[in-house]
Amino acid sequence: MISQDKLQEILQRLRAQDDVRGVVVTTMEGLPLSSDIDPETTENVAAIITSLVGKALDAVRELKEGKLSFLTLDTDKGQKNIAPEPKEGLILVVLKN
Amino acid sequence: MISQDKLQEILQRLRAQDDVRGVVVTTMEGLPLSSDIDPETTENVAAIITSLVGKALDAVRELKEGKLSFLTLDTDKGQKNIAPEPKEGLILVVLKN
Repeated sequence: MISQDKLQEILQRLRAQDDVRGVVVTTMEGLPLSSDIDPETTENVAAIITSLVGKALDAVRELKEGKLSFLTLDTDKGQKNIAPEPKEGLILVVLKN
Repeated sequence: MISQDKLQEILQRLRAQDDVRGVVVTTMEGLPLSSDIDPETTENVAAIITSLVGKALDAVRELKEGKLSFLTLDTDKGQKNIAPEPKEGLILVVLKN
């Protein structure tokens, strides 16, 4: 399990970036652990992204492509970087402008 | 609908890149239209990626992030770039080393 200190350090580094609009950390089950955006969007992001990550992990396993390190969504409203950390039981979601 | 000429031009440009291991084009329903990798992997990629893209399109819609232009998977075995083209009814999958 990742230490709280280590997690806080990662979050600070991410949030310091100019184009980062928000960072959400959830458990693999979709329970938000940390967020700097509004509660409603956080809940939504956590639930929806968790389900998408589950599907992406399945896809990578079925395609025998090894470990999934990042899942990136490029949309009209910027990039979403999603880092699943199954060992830590966490998913990091970085919303960019 | 995209013209065959236009599609072939895009495919040629993609395949000319050094790090590209294969390009698969499927319908939004997972029916492979064009591929330069083996038939079994093609079928697998088409089925699995189509289902993942469906989930990603849902996620982006629910999060009100506009249009999804790219979905990228970074794995131990390289990057997979996935471009859904719902208007054309196509999904382009580019497997990189």
